[in-house]
Amino acid sequence: ENQLFLEEERRMSFLGFKCLEISRWVICGLIGFLTGLIACCIDIAVENLAGVKYYVVKQNIEKFTEVGGLSISLILWAVLNSAFVMVGAVIVAFFEPGAAGSGIPQIKCYLNGVKIPRVVRLKTLVVKVCGVICSVAGGLAVGKEGPMIHSGAVVAAGVSQGRSTSLKKDFKIFEYFRRDTEKRDFVSAGAAAGVSAAFGAPVGGVLFSLEEGASFWNQMLTWRIFFASMISTFTLNFFLSIYNNKPGDLSSPGLINFGRFESDVSVCGLLGALFNILNYWLTIFRIRYVHRPCLQVMEAMLVAPLGPDQSEDYPLQLFCADGEYNSMATAFFNTPERSVRSLFHNPPGSYNPLTLSLFTLTYFFLACWTYGLTVSAGVFIPSLLIGAAWGRLFGILLAAITPNGSVWAVPGKYALMGAAAQLGGIVRMTLSLTVIMVEATGNVTYGLPIMLVLLTAKIVGDYFVEGLYDIHIKLQSVPFLHLEAPATSHWLTAREVMGAPVTCFNRIEKVGTIVDVLSNTSTNHNGFPVVMPVAASDNICGLILRSQLIVLLKHKVFVELARSRLTQRKLQLKDFRDAYPRFPPIQSIHVSQDERECMMDLTEFMNPTPYTVPQETSLPRVFKLFRALGLRHLVVVDSENRVVGLVTRKDLARYHLGKHGLEEMQLAQT
Amino acid sequence: ENQLFLEEERRMSFLGFKCLEISRWVICGLIGFLTGLIACCIDIAVENLAGVKYYVVKQNIEKFTEVGGLSISLILWAVLNSAFVMVGAVIVAFFEPGAAGSGIPQIKCYLNGVKIPRVVRLKTLVVKVCGVICSVAGGLAVGKEGPMIHSGAVVAAGVSQGRSTSLKKDFKIFEYFRRDTEKRDFVSAGAAAGVSAAFGAPVGGVLFSLEEGASFWNQMLTWRIFFASMISTFTLNFFLSIYNNKPGDLSSPGLINFGRFESDVSVCGLLGALFNILNYWLTIFRIRYVHRPCLQVMEAMLVAPLGPDQSEDYPLQLFCADGEYNSMATAFFNTPERSVRSLFHNPPGSYNPLTLSLFTLTYFFLACWTYGLTVSAGVFIPSLLIGAAWGRLFGILLAAITPNGSVWAVPGKYALMGAAAQLGGIVRMTLSLTVIMVEATGNVTYGLPIMLVLLTAKIVGDYFVEGLYDIHIKLQSVPFLHLEAPATSHWLTAREVMGAPVTCFNRIEKVGTIVDVLSNTSTNHNGFPVVMPVAASDNICGLILRSQLIVLLKHKVFVELARSRLTQRKLQLKDFRDAYPRFPPIQSIHVSQDERECMMDLTEFMNPTPYTVPQETSLPRVFKLFRALGLRHLVVVDSENRVVGLVTRKDLARYHLGKHGLEEMQLAQT
Repeated sequence: ENQLFLEEERRMSFLGFKCLEISRWVICGLIGFLTGLIACCIDIAVENLAGVKYYVVKQNIEKFTEVGGLSISLILWAVLNSAFVMVGAVIVAFFEPGAAGSGIPQIKCYLNGVKIPRVVRLKTLVVKVCGVICSVAGGLAVGKEGPMIHSGAVVAAGVSQGRSTSLKKDFKIFEYFRRDTEKRDFVSAGAAAGVSAAFGAPVGGVLFSLEEGASFWNQMLTWRIFFASMISTFTLNFFLSIYNNKPGDLSSPGLINFGRFESDVSVCGLLGALFNILNYWLTIFRIRYVHRPCLQVMEAMLVAPLGPDQSEDYPLQLFCADGEYNSMATAFFNTPERSVRSLFHNPPGSYNPLTLSLFTLTYFFLACWTYGLTVSAGVFIPSLLIGAAWGRLFGILLAAITPNGSVWAVPGKYALMGAAAQLGGIVRMTLSLTVIMVEATGNVTYGLPIMLVLLTAKIVGDYFVEGLYDIHIKLQSVPFLHLEAPATSHWLTAREVMGAPVTCFNRIEKVGTIVDVLSNTSTNHNGFPVVMPVAASDNICGLILRSQLIVLLKHKVFVELARSRLTQRKLQLKDFRDAYPRFPPIQSIHVSQDERECMMDLTEFMNPTPYTVPQETSLPRVFKLFRALGLRHLVVVDSENRVVGLVTRKDLARYHLGKHGLEEMQLAQT
Repeated sequence: ENQLFLEEERRMSFLGFKCLEISRWVICGLIGFLTGLIACCIDIAVENLAGVKYYVVKQNIEKFTEVGGLSISLILWAVLNSAFVMVGAVIVAFFEPGAAGSGIPQIKCYLNGVKIPRVVRLKTLVVKVCGVICSVAGGLAVGKEGPMIHSGAVVAAGVSQGRSTSLKKDFKIFEYFRRDTEKRDFVSAGAAAGVSAAFGAPVGGVLFSLEEGASFWNQMLTWRIFFASMISTFTLNFFLSIYNNKPGDLSSPGLINFGRFESDVSVCGLLGALFNILNYWLTIFRIRYVHRPCLQVMEAMLVAPLGPDQSEDYPLQLFCADGEYNSMATAFFNTPERSVRSLFHNPPGSYNPLTLSLFTLTYFFLACWTYGLTVSAGVFIPSLLIGAAWGRLFGILLAAITPNGSVWAVPGKYALMGAAAQLGGIVRMTLSLTVIMVEATGNVTYGLPIMLVLLTAKIVGDYFVEGLYDIHIKLQSVPFLHLEAPATSHWLTAREVMGAPVTCFNRIEKVGTIVDVLSNTSTNHNGFPVVMPVAASDNICGLILRSQLIVLLKHKVFVELARSRLTQRKLQLKDFRDAYPRFPPIQSIHVSQDERECMMDLTEFMNPTPYTVPQETSLPRVFKLFRALGLRHLVVVDSENRVVGLVTRKDLARYHLGKHGLEEMQLAQT
């Protein structure tokens, strides 16, 4: 917020504000629509590719079954799978490595305010969508939901700015929103739309955005996020119903449909703990795996043939009598989503406990291995499947030892609890996950057991290690700000955490000084307090950002030049918005020796009323202010309003509660 | 936050923090449980009373039908109704007027941070519960949900403090939570539990709390609120299932059960607008009605006989052939909840359009009249019923003009839309209401139409007048802080809105001065900046509250006395917590002439790092800070950190966007 911005705001009439508000709603609707459409395309593409694969394999089975050709058919199937996965892995590894994995850790960081490069670019979106289609069609043990969330976020980032930096096209609309704060709000709407399309859970989507992104409660924003989510699930539902020749049948509100559950009492809380202990070591092992692109592609191709096929519900008559079908083969050859649903709803007795155990173990390790691969992949559905299988086993066991017809002996319910527990144990998303599962099951009475299960999984899991996404985030040394300051940090004050000494500029500063400071690569500061000498000390009078200084230098907004060239166009907000978000680096700005002696007046462009805290303020209080207001820089002053330090995200994020109390971490420069 | 508090926090070990966190969860579980129990009791009591009434009337009908005694039966029924309502109105009007109405406006204010007296007292709870039982049993056109929300809030306020001020019992637990901030968090959990019990919508409950109360997103709090809501609906479900001899049947998650809806496409957006135009004038008229207690009781008794009976589904064979029943009489003699459900689900053709219109009009005016009465009553269900009736009429009309079997001609769906529209038009709660209705209908595909309907209703309604609750709040001149600063208020700065000159105290201040300032009834200040003379000016060094000063005066914490009485017990946080929340008024503190000359050292008890803003800060920024951090006082300083003014809630709340731009309101002293 600076003088330019305030002037623009004051000039705006009430009608202008209303138009802006309407634009926000239109953008959110568009975000929801496009996200739903993308989900629809992914679904249809996967179905078609799987159909092609199945057709080829089936033909061969019929041709070769006598010649001992089952093995030939299997080899053919494995080759097809590997081919799909190779394409997917190649485009990710060589074109856009940022599209690997599910995308949820990157989105979490983005919403937290950390600038991770290339997260919300068009290229990332294209590679991600193609990648996930290839991964799923190639039979990997993956899900589509993480990539959906990432895709929604990219769509939002693109649509809301009204231009494409990658394609170098500027549509000259939505220029007001070319700012970090606005962009981030839209990205949270996009993420929510992605969740909504993936699960048919709009409210879950909203809560996901709130859990990951919110600093302070903004009702209008929440309302718009909800709107985007609703449009997303409706769009997906609508187009899929048309594709399936059942127009108007809106029974598939999400890519994942758990089927309806009846009311019943279920108790399950320890499954999450059990799963998590197993998961802990595998997760650590998985993360420490070092990857290089070629190796990644080869590894992906290796895993592909081992995984369950992603084809549709194609029962396979392998070595069975006519009329039966091999349920385990079906499980292997089904989409994980369908398998999950079968585990939830099939009547007792559908599954042979032994084969189910074998399947579970195999799939567990497969999923672990798969998640580290350089493909676009989500981890939700694999986790749900593993958990559902475990849960069903538990239910079968319970049914074996309790009297017949007992209300406790319904294996499908335990499959649900197990699925929730396993997923909760891995991702540790609590509130939004509960809501997502409740919405997906369509029955609110499962809420309490699901909630208890997730809570247990989180408590047990947290004791050992953080959630999967948080591990990824920490390994990249990202300065991620958690929701609260660590519990025992009251003895720390602003004076101890702040960065000092801090580089300040005078209100009217020499260009040469500014250029030197910005070019200094040892300190990568982004915000600089602006001081005004009063008596013998420097009183704070503003805050200016690196990006703003670069724009000023680029346009040569010098005091001397303003006087001489009376016709010079006054710098406007538009110039700042055009440069956003990829500001040119300081090295690309050329300043001559004469220009270095000029003076620059920062008064109009700085933030004249930056937030300040006294240096004795306790850390939790600083943290609360930082988080609640979504700040990037907080100036620390003494009792006479003189600048003594600057608190940035990195200063706060490094404090962290470890096993031995408060610890400091080394964080990367951002 | 002051030195005492910081010391306590620093002394606390990690285990201590964990125990506190566990306590919070236990309290929330207890809140949910008790709220569910209360809902259960209300339901059972109403059912029994209605059963008694029906039994008496039925006996008389059989006895008197020949003697032309239908009129006698009706008179008997009217007398019984009046009797019930009289009891309800008497206890509200004479014992606790604060329990009148639904309670939602009061809870909204409380969560906003405004201190309204007697809102969360035990007496209010008792009168409210008894009152709503009497109102509902007495056949008024009311609902139970507003009173449920209020009850939940009172339960939360009581349980979380670990003592009852009304009953003068202190259980010596939960002493840490005897603070405004903690109490308010628990009250939002209680309100959510109330919503959850009323509608079987736990997520809706959470969103209601967030919409009304949140200043900044607190994930742990939201999670606890969700926990309380879940426990609440589960408890209600569980006990009701036992009572109905169907243990384990958890199909009634809320007091209001809309029944299941199948997926279908519906379009409805203008019904809300229509309803609201009608509602506008009636609402204004209703509010301006002046009431006196006796008049209120009489009026209530007058309305009672006119209203639909709250008895259970008792079909009445009035003038009908055997085997049929008068559906309109049934509508009149049914609980509104059941009527709503019938309107949603009965097959086309169940209702005669003419009688339905007559019923709707009658009920509309009845509900309008009823809402102003001095009884405990909610407005949700009456609004839903009116809307459902209108919607059904619209659906019947549509069915008459479209070809048979058309997907558009399902009157029940329009009843749902109409219900949503009418309710949205009256209360203007958007996000939480959508979620509540989606949860209540059990189908997420209705979310989008419901959301569009509510949005339309809100937009149209807002053009004319605010929501019902907001009207009530405004009429009481309560300084309610909305979510954002008014749109065109960027030209206002802190300097223009602040209160000045501001009364400050020195760090070491004379007792007499303090007493005089506090006793000054013309200015009812609650926060006083503490300054320290530096050079020739007064630099801010802290902020102290009226309540803290009163405790200090009461315990005579004077500098002179501390020196002389070395054994004097040092004042602890416990003393402040014991005095909370009903601090003694200044008049009850006796200070002798000698004591007036003593000095008091405020250093240890004041907040040493209050939030400050420079005086040129724009109003939206001040507003954002105030709201995001939940402040009560914000000190305005100049460039040298000298106090120039103080911003309080009242200073910000009076700016308001009216039809002619920014307006200032006159607000009551708080």
